[in-house]
Amino acid sequence: MNPFVDSKHQSVVALGEEQLIVRIRGWLGRAAPPHPAGPGDDCAVVKAAEGARLLLTADPVVLCRHFDEHTPPAAVARKLLRRNLSDVAAMGGKPRFAILSWAIPPRTSVRWLEAFHRALGRDALRYGVTINGGDISSASEDLAAHLTVVGEGPARPLLRTGARTGDWIYVSGELGGSILGRHAAFEPRLPEGRWLSVRKAVRCMIDVSDGLAKELRLIAPRGSRAAIDPVAVPVSRAAKRLARRSGRTALEHALVDGEDFELLFAVEPGSSAVAIENAWRRRFQTRLTRIGRFVRAGEPASGEVDFSRLAGYEHLRSAAKS
Amino acid sequence: MNPFVDSKHQSVVALGEEQLIVRIRGWLGRAAPPHPAGPGDDCAVVKAAEGARLLLTADPVVLCRHFDEHTPPAAVARKLLRRNLSDVAAMGGKPRFAILSWAIPPRTSVRWLEAFHRALGRDALRYGVTINGGDISSASEDLAAHLTVVGEGPARPLLRTGARTGDWIYVSGELGGSILGRHAAFEPRLPEGRWLSVRKAVRCMIDVSDGLAKELRLIAPRGSRAAIDPVAVPVSRAAKRLARRSGRTALEHALVDGEDFELLFAVEPGSSAVAIENAWRRRFQTRLTRIGRFVRAGEPASGEVDFSRLAGYEHLRSAAKS
Repeated sequence: MNPFVDSKHQSVVALGEEQLIVRIRGWLGRAAPPHPAGPGDDCAVVKAAEGARLLLTADPVVLCRHFDEHTPPAAVARKLLRRNLSDVAAMGGKPRFAILSWAIPPRTSVRWLEAFHRALGRDALRYGVTINGGDISSASEDLAAHLTVVGEGPARPLLRTGARTGDWIYVSGELGGSILGRHAAFEPRLPEGRWLSVRKAVRCMIDVSDGLAKELRLIAPRGSRAAIDPVAVPVSRAAKRLARRSGRTALEHALVDGEDFELLFAVEPGSSAVAIENAWRRRFQTRLTRIGRFVRAGEPASGEVDFSRLAGYEHLRSAAKS
Repeated sequence: MNPFVDSKHQSVVALGEEQLIVRIRGWLGRAAPPHPAGPGDDCAVVKAAEGARLLLTADPVVLCRHFDEHTPPAAVARKLLRRNLSDVAAMGGKPRFAILSWAIPPRTSVRWLEAFHRALGRDALRYGVTINGGDISSASEDLAAHLTVVGEGPARPLLRTGARTGDWIYVSGELGGSILGRHAAFEPRLPEGRWLSVRKAVRCMIDVSDGLAKELRLIAPRGSRAAIDPVAVPVSRAAKRLARRSGRTALEHALVDGEDFELLFAVEPGSSAVAIENAWRRRFQTRLTRIGRFVRAGEPASGEVDFSRLAGYEHLRSAAKS
């Protein structure tokens, strides 16, 4: 059977990434265990021998998708490692091991690979991660590095599920305009993630990789929607710079740009949430913002962000367009 | 910095896979831990929380490298899973979890992906492995699936190192001509590998993925060479069929073809080795052959295989030629 089709509607472009993931889970059947051991969260949470709780996650960097010929190889390496670490951070885990699998076209530069791996090694040491092995395969065109990270889970990994109607919604850092540089130089929120995982009032967490609007949909409890105060959203300076030339508002960039790699989480409303806010500010430099709350889907809107006109980043579709 | 170069001698082709791996280990520096926690064996052997001993390994399947448009998607899926399982088998481990990372060109067929994942799910269940998560990225040309498998190690994982001069050399199954079909339908030697790992007389083990000749070099103790009896080598029927049209002998195919995915191991010579042979034959249907022994490098040859004229499969170089 030919893996490629000429007709667009029989190709993955017709499905898009989200739908393809849903299908794949169905096709795998019982081999894909239920969440959180299976697909559907920042990491898979599994129990190995001796009861060790492991977090497993993978993310690649692919030429012309996640970087281009102008991106310094060191930035590509850091991006590869840190986007995986951000997934571990979003569960409250501790990254430990990494396996690197390469697809390398024949005309790939040895000097480029040297700069990449030197930076990867330095960055891995910085975060207490080792590069334990991997594989090298040749490819025709697409230079791609796939990294799988194994982390240790906290006693209570913070899943995407668990938010309830009424919960307050928080986000770390500032959002939007990551394409101007931060997408390859962000700081995975590992200490913050671990710290949040031991706070019972924190109900769920995710990292903002595909844009705040899309991630909010993923963590919203059934029958609820996120009521976000547009004035509260922490808009980055990069989002404002980008807005000057993009024709979109800085807020729109903050809501949909993606690759922010900040933590988005929901907290039981009230005094516990306020206590967390205060303790966070004593402990971390990282900005923390309460941006809204989950309300019943039927509740009338009042001055909040209208998500109906926004969409997060869609990998396969956007690739097809470009 | 451009990741591609026009000049061949600055590209990975000039280095070849083996040299590139050596360089990468150097570039990673202290981030690549020493063997067996780091690169250099079938799996990395690491200790996670609670003392759990984990095996980590990764292998991809890339279009035009490991399969082509005529390979049934189910065969591609089985090959992807089983070549990883073969690495776990070669340490005596038990495969548990898998993470699948895709690079998918836009014109990829949804039907092809369906057939692939259905087969992957069935095969994973057969071997007690779950597909716990992964990632999907778009790519331009190269359809590639990178699988990382996490296994549980036995008390004494069988490494590539450990053979001594004088050890007897054994191989499971039959070798050569895998390209005629077995490369996508082999049986990873998981029960055999686990069984061997608890036998103290077994000193080292590797799976034959790049050809017997190359694997023998990898496990030979320092100052030793493998003295292989050409009559003893278990030549497959496929190797004989291939020899009729290739201009090479069936023995040559058995020595260099690769993708046999059989177990190659060294055993303390004498009665313990004979006891293992006998116990193996009572327990397994899989053929077991003593093919030679490690002798001092200076020892004169007598009727044994002359490896000086052979070479194993070299991924990057061969890709450059094709």
